[in-house]
Formats: sequence, structure tokens, C-alpha cells
Amino acid sequence: MKSPELADLQAARERIAPYVHHTPVLCSQQLDGHTGAELFFKCEHLQRAGAFKARGATNAVLSLDATEAGAGVATHSSGNHGAALAMAAGQRDLPAYIVMPTNAPTVKRAAVAGYGGEIIECEPTLAAREATLATVLKKTGAVAVHPYNDPRIIAGQGTAALELMEQVPNLDVIVVPVGGGGLLAGTALAAKGLNSRIEVVAVEPEGADDAFRSFGLGELQPQTNPNTIADGLRAGLGELNFEIIRKHVDTILTVPDSVIVEAMKLQWTRMKQVVEPSGAVGFAGVLEHPERFRGRRVGLVVSGGNVDIDNLPW
Amino acid sequence: MKSPELADLQAARERIAPYVHHTPVLCSQQLDGHTGAELFFKCEHLQRAGAFKARGATNAVLSLDATEAGAGVATHSSGNHGAALAMAAGQRDLPAYIVMPTNAPTVKRAAVAGYGGEIIECEPTLAAREATLATVLKKTGAVAVHPYNDPRIIAGQGTAALELMEQVPNLDVIVVPVGGGGLLAGTALAAKGLNSRIEVVAVEPEGADDAFRSFGLGELQPQTNPNTIADGLRAGLGELNFEIIRKHVDTILTVPDSVIVEAMKLQWTRMKQVVEPSGAVGFAGVLEHPERFRGRRVGLVVSGGNVDIDNLPW
Repeated sequence: MKSPELADLQAARERIAPYVHHTPVLCSQQLDGHTGAELFFKCEHLQRAGAFKARGATNAVLSLDATEAGAGVATHSSGNHGAALAMAAGQRDLPAYIVMPTNAPTVKRAAVAGYGGEIIECEPTLAAREATLATVLKKTGAVAVHPYNDPRIIAGQGTAALELMEQVPNLDVIVVPVGGGGLLAGTALAAKGLNSRIEVVAVEPEGADDAFRSFGLGELQPQTNPNTIADGLRAGLGELNFEIIRKHVDTILTVPDSVIVEAMKLQWTRMKQVVEPSGAVGFAGVLEHPERFRGRRVGLVVSGGNVDIDNLPW
Repeated sequence: MKSPELADLQAARERIAPYVHHTPVLCSQQLDGHTGAELFFKCEHLQRAGAFKARGATNAVLSLDATEAGAGVATHSSGNHGAALAMAAGQRDLPAYIVMPTNAPTVKRAAVAGYGGEIIECEPTLAAREATLATVLKKTGAVAVHPYNDPRIIAGQGTAALELMEQVPNLDVIVVPVGGGGLLAGTALAAKGLNSRIEVVAVEPEGADDAFRSFGLGELQPQTNPNTIADGLRAGLGELNFEIIRKHVDTILTVPDSVIVEAMKLQWTRMKQVVEPSGAVGFAGVLEHPERFRGRRVGLVVSGGNVDIDNLPW
């Protein structure tokens, strides 16, 4: 696989524009006062299907030619990528087969079904997910769309940062959460492609810190027993993602779950925005490491807002 | 007291513009699909201090001349008006004395204190609130600013509708919640002042339906034992408010608390917006009476977002 370039991100942006939202950027005087930074929140929780994942999935689906696309698309996902892929496929009237573990949150299952995706259940292990997906691919002839280790996905996710940098000129730093690394790789390509002086900071939960460890050692490390409230960030970093991240990301910070919950509550109560735990991880990084951000213009990608409001983590 | 006119609303808008937010209008394809209407949500939960109340309070405080203002302002409030008045007074460096019942929600007490308001506690009865306020006024010489039965407040609250009608041309109907009637009276003056054909619909909780009864009988009825989850709408309609509402409002609908909670959950999960129960009452009216709104362009004022996220009504 070849890393996408800025031109691929720009092409993705054109391609997906009719199908995804150009999300707003929100500010909060209270949170600026709280942190001493100027914060600009790119609201991907207001994106279609409630997460930035709509960008990559739509780009991947629209990039397929008619022959490839004919039998539909498939993936395994416990979260937002599954819903986003189902939505993107539905826009092209293609079937979407989403392999979901039996313990996937009800709200995420409902989203996949609501967008017309066909859910195939499996045991909640990575081995079962991969085996079930292989069976589905064989049976249906669908194209597998990986949630992050894919240049079309990375290019799509990077379009959020392209928009943010237009909406807010002269950012000093962009902060994004990292799980599998699709959003981070795309953001880094966008940011450094447009302005080499902008700092790109990733934030990762302490309980799922494979990106932090991989970045420090210069070698891809496996994700082992992830344990974090940020359910969107439990995946292990992809290979292509790591390659891009090594080149273009400046820093990876970690945050404990307690600060993720604090960040989430501040975004709910002060900004009145329903943000999921993973979506609050960037802001958690600012709360946990305030000295890095004080006095600077900080863009944050709020990655998603799909949270089960009947089961809140407080 | 004399009813304000459109010109007073327009003057209020100029006066308060530097101090309050020009709030965005949000749409949701999902909620449009759910209701069959085109819904435009004017986001006053994103207003300063988290509610439209900032508009009226700021207009009232800025309307005082230097002599009147010298000793500060005072009110009794268990909710958003207290915080808004404290904030507005703080911007003019005036003291604000807020009489609050001992059972006021913690989050609303914290907001008043956070804006520098001085909280004076009293028993949770209207008599105790009024007696305590009278004592405060006598002792401090402050000016009382009523939460709704006041032309300056009504003019300020009406500025949200002035903005909404500019942001969304050709609305067929505007829907707002009614409690004391400040927002409703201001909205009706704005809407009918700009376009006599626009329909103005108020929505009231069934458990606090004095406006509905007053409107039907053509005579102001007292609010007795209000019992609703919508804590911002438990007040009885003001006299001046009723006079304006009789003239300019087309319909008052009622909704049960169960539908208010349903509306609130839809706004949280689909729009990702933290809306307080009172702020969801307008949308609850659309859910409860869908035939009135189907196929129409409907503006809704989301009145506030100050909710205790540790104590949600589900």
C-alpha cells in the first residue's frame, strides 16, 4: 500500500463533499479560560453518522469502480466505522456487510441497522472477527474496507483537517486522538502538507497506548489487552498509518481515563455538546498537559458523539 | 407597564450584540425524516450562560442609567435568569443579588456564583422568595429585574426570533416553550412584527398549563402546583406577557413529560446537543402534534442547555 499525498486528500474532499457535512468549528470562552489556550473544536460529532468515519468510508466507497463495487462492501467493526460504511454504501445503493461482535454497544448496532447495513454477529475476539469477515467476503464477493489501514480511508479522514485549517487560519497546533491511526495519519498529511510549521499532536488513552510505545521505539508494537473507556481507540495502530505517523507527527501524549471523563463532562456541560469518550480524548490531552498548549491557537478534532446516554461513565 | 414594540426589540438587539452570542441554527436530516417537517433549531442552549435568558437580562442591565444602576440589580430565581442577570451585571461591574430557594439545582447555584452573583438563600416558596427579595432591595437599594414580566426583558428575549428569521427565510411557523412568557411574548412581537402571516405556536408542559388555560379562557389564570420535569417552565404567566400573547400568539399546545423526555433524548442522540428539559419542549410539541407541522418550515427556539448531567431524567 502506498501512502496518500496531499493531492489525494484534496481529491477525496471533492469526491465526498456532496455526501458528508462540512462540520462547524465551535469555541468556548469558558474552556479557553480554563486552559489558557485558544481552542477551536472541529465538530465531527456533528458529522453524518455521528463521527469523522463517514469521511473515510464515503471516500473508499466512491473510489470503487463499478465492477469492484457490484457485490458491495464489508468490514468488521464494533463501532463507528461500521455505521459509516453502511451509510456510505447505502448512498451508492450497495449492500454493506458489517461483522459485529456480540458485545457491541446497542446504540452502534442500531446505527448500522438504521443505515441498512447487514449485521453478521461473531464472538468478541479479533480472531473471530477476522474469520467471520473472511467467510462473508468469500460468500458475497464484497470488497473489504479496513477501518484505518487503507490509503482511501486515510485520505478521507484527512479532509476534516483540510476544512479546519481553512476555517481557522494560523493554527499553531492540531490535536487528534489516535486508535488505529486513520484520523491521525490523515490529519498529519493535511497539516504538514499545507503548513510544515504546524505542530501535530496525538493523544492516546494510557490503557491502549500502542501508538505511544510504537512512536517512542520507532517500531510498530502490538496493542495488548486495551483497557480504556474510549471504545473507539482500542484498535491497534495500522502499518500504513504508523509509517505516515512516524514521518509527520510531532508528539504522542497519553491521558488516563479519569481525565477523558473530565474532558467529556466539560464538553457536555460548558459546550453543550454530546461527545463520546474517544471524541473527548484530544481535549483531555490539553487538560492533562496544559503547559504545552497555553497561549497557543489549538485546533482539536472532536472525533465522534455516539454514546449510549442510558449508560454514562459517571 | 407598556408592551414593547418591534422597534424596541431592534434597539435591544443593537444594545446587547457586543455581549451575547449570535447563536447558530442547526438542522437534522434524521429529525426531519422523523417528523416530516423541515426543522430549524435556533440554539439558545449555546447562548452565554447556556440560555436565551442572557438576552433579556443583558438588555435590562444595559437599559439602566448610571443612577439607577449604581446599587446593582436583584432578582429571585431558581434557574437560568439568576445566572444570566449575574453575568449581565458583571459585564457592567455591578453587583447582582440573586435570591435562590434552598432546593435550587446545584448546577444553577454554581452558575450564579461563577458569574460573581451574590446568592441569598430562602425557603422554597414563592412567598419566601418575594419576602427575601424585598428585604434585599431595601437593604442594598438594588433595582429589581423580574425574570419575564418586564418590557426590557421581553424585548431582549425577542431578539432570538429576530435573528432566526434572518438566518432562515420563509419560515411558516415558529415554536417556543412558554413558562412565564418572556420568550413567547418577545418571539410573538418579533415574528408578527416582521411577517404577519407567520404562525406563532407555544408549547407548555401539561403539568404547568396555566398559559394554555389562560389563553383558552381569555383571562389570566394562576399557576397552581406545577408538576413537570421542565423546571424552567414552572412559573406562572406574567400579566404583561399575557396581554401580548393574547394579541399575537396563534396557538398554545400542551405536551406530557414523557414526550418532553423523548424529545430531549432525540436532541441528545441525533443532534448531539445537550438540551435541558425546557429546551426540548418546543420539539416535544412537534412530536406530540405532528399533523400541524408536516411539510412546513418550522423554526424552534431551543431555550437552554443547563442540565445536571449527573441526574438525568432517564
